[in-house]
Amino acid sequence: MTNVQLQSDERIDQLFSQDIQIIQSASVFAFSLDAVLLAHFANAPKGGRGLTVDLCAGNGAIGLFYSQKSSGHITEVELQPRLADMAERSIELNHLDERMNVLNIDLADTLQHIKGGSVETVLCNPPYFLSSETSQKNPNEHLAIARHEITTNLDTVCDVASRLLKMNGKLFMVHRPDRLVDVVSAMQAVKLAPKRIQFVYPKVGKKANMVLIEAIKNGKSGGVRVLEPIVVYDQDGQYTPMVHQVLYGE
Amino acid sequence: MTNVQLQSDERIDQLFSQDIQIIQSASVFAFSLDAVLLAHFANAPKGGRGLTVDLCAGNGAIGLFYSQKSSGHITEVELQPRLADMAERSIELNHLDERMNVLNIDLADTLQHIKGGSVETVLCNPPYFLSSETSQKNPNEHLAIARHEITTNLDTVCDVASRLLKMNGKLFMVHRPDRLVDVVSAMQAVKLAPKRIQFVYPKVGKKANMVLIEAIKNGKSGGVRVLEPIVVYDQDGQYTPMVHQVLYGE
Repeated sequence: MTNVQLQSDERIDQLFSQDIQIIQSASVFAFSLDAVLLAHFANAPKGGRGLTVDLCAGNGAIGLFYSQKSSGHITEVELQPRLADMAERSIELNHLDERMNVLNIDLADTLQHIKGGSVETVLCNPPYFLSSETSQKNPNEHLAIARHEITTNLDTVCDVASRLLKMNGKLFMVHRPDRLVDVVSAMQAVKLAPKRIQFVYPKVGKKANMVLIEAIKNGKSGGVRVLEPIVVYDQDGQYTPMVHQVLYGE
Repeated sequence: MTNVQLQSDERIDQLFSQDIQIIQSASVFAFSLDAVLLAHFANAPKGGRGLTVDLCAGNGAIGLFYSQKSSGHITEVELQPRLADMAERSIELNHLDERMNVLNIDLADTLQHIKGGSVETVLCNPPYFLSSETSQKNPNEHLAIARHEITTNLDTVCDVASRLLKMNGKLFMVHRPDRLVDVVSAMQAVKLAPKRIQFVYPKVGKKANMVLIEAIKNGKSGGVRVLEPIVVYDQDGQYTPMVHQVLYGE
């Protein structure tokens, strides 16, 4: 058993469908369904031995889940020292030190650490809200930075992803449908072509509250596939079989 | 009973949910579910007394269905004389001569007939396929022009729509999801902001094969709503209740 120190507000969560343990903290950062669905949506390329970079990694949950799909190295990029430290300890906890590392940097500086055009896969669960949407901003600074475009924004995230990716490399991103046009524009501006899109609906009859997007570096604009909808809860408030499978593996 | 001449290959179809009769011809043009769903998706603004223009009108089905929602004038713009003539006779057949007309012109010339910035609503079911997709091109010229970007294209359609629309006027378009990125780009390039999007899936578990988009003239890029999915057929190959309601009104 690996001995990892937990801070007083931390707990260890396990995603039941995977043999991965994640250090969480409700007061600074805890992964949510968005992270689980993104890691599920992201396909490792055949072989899957190339480099993966998780931008806006938070406590590292997406990269940790994705480590079960890929056999290559995974680098987590996270600005906030407290969250980067949680990600590092989760890597240790899961004995993934040899194929995962954390860069505690501003993602805008990623190219100083990782060679441009060298990355096979970029994963990203960026801050969803415009910095100007102050009314919704979380008073907790850790959570505010994770959710609002305070320290980075969509254009920067897409630009860094594009510069990191090799030709035909893939970016997998989760975002909010209300910013779909912004996401598509930001991707197109840096030669990332959305190719596979899946919308997530909280319930039947509700509008979508999440969108999963796969974009390919230097791809053409046509040939977009919009996959079957994911509905999270049934009419009784229970997870639908599709989401239950992703969360519990059964 | 109105006496309208039918050509030998023509028939009169009625959409059961509406009291509208449409002259159809399998050999030149017949409306399909796309047209019905677009007319259903399109909301008339409050009052609905403004001008509506249906671009790429074909046999006029969309404008004719939409006439039940709006009380303003509707102009059908159709390049092909044979189809424009069918639309004219359907207007007569439904006693809508006083509030509908047909312009048998290239849509690129629409601004020579309708004042720019004067239109409340534009409806459009454009050709879906790139002209270069020759392998799929229909040998029937009437159908080929309706389905392939031979005589117009997405950029022109969006440009004309934008110039026709008044500030905050709306374009309602149906297209194929594989061209979603092209549609969003073409709209953005002419200051049309997609605001409401609905995907249509042939069956549960299949990818979407149609997308309905509402865009607003001079709108901002945020605040996109992705409505609940429309699924056309159930597992037994019957229309789902939602689509049955649109087609049969019950």
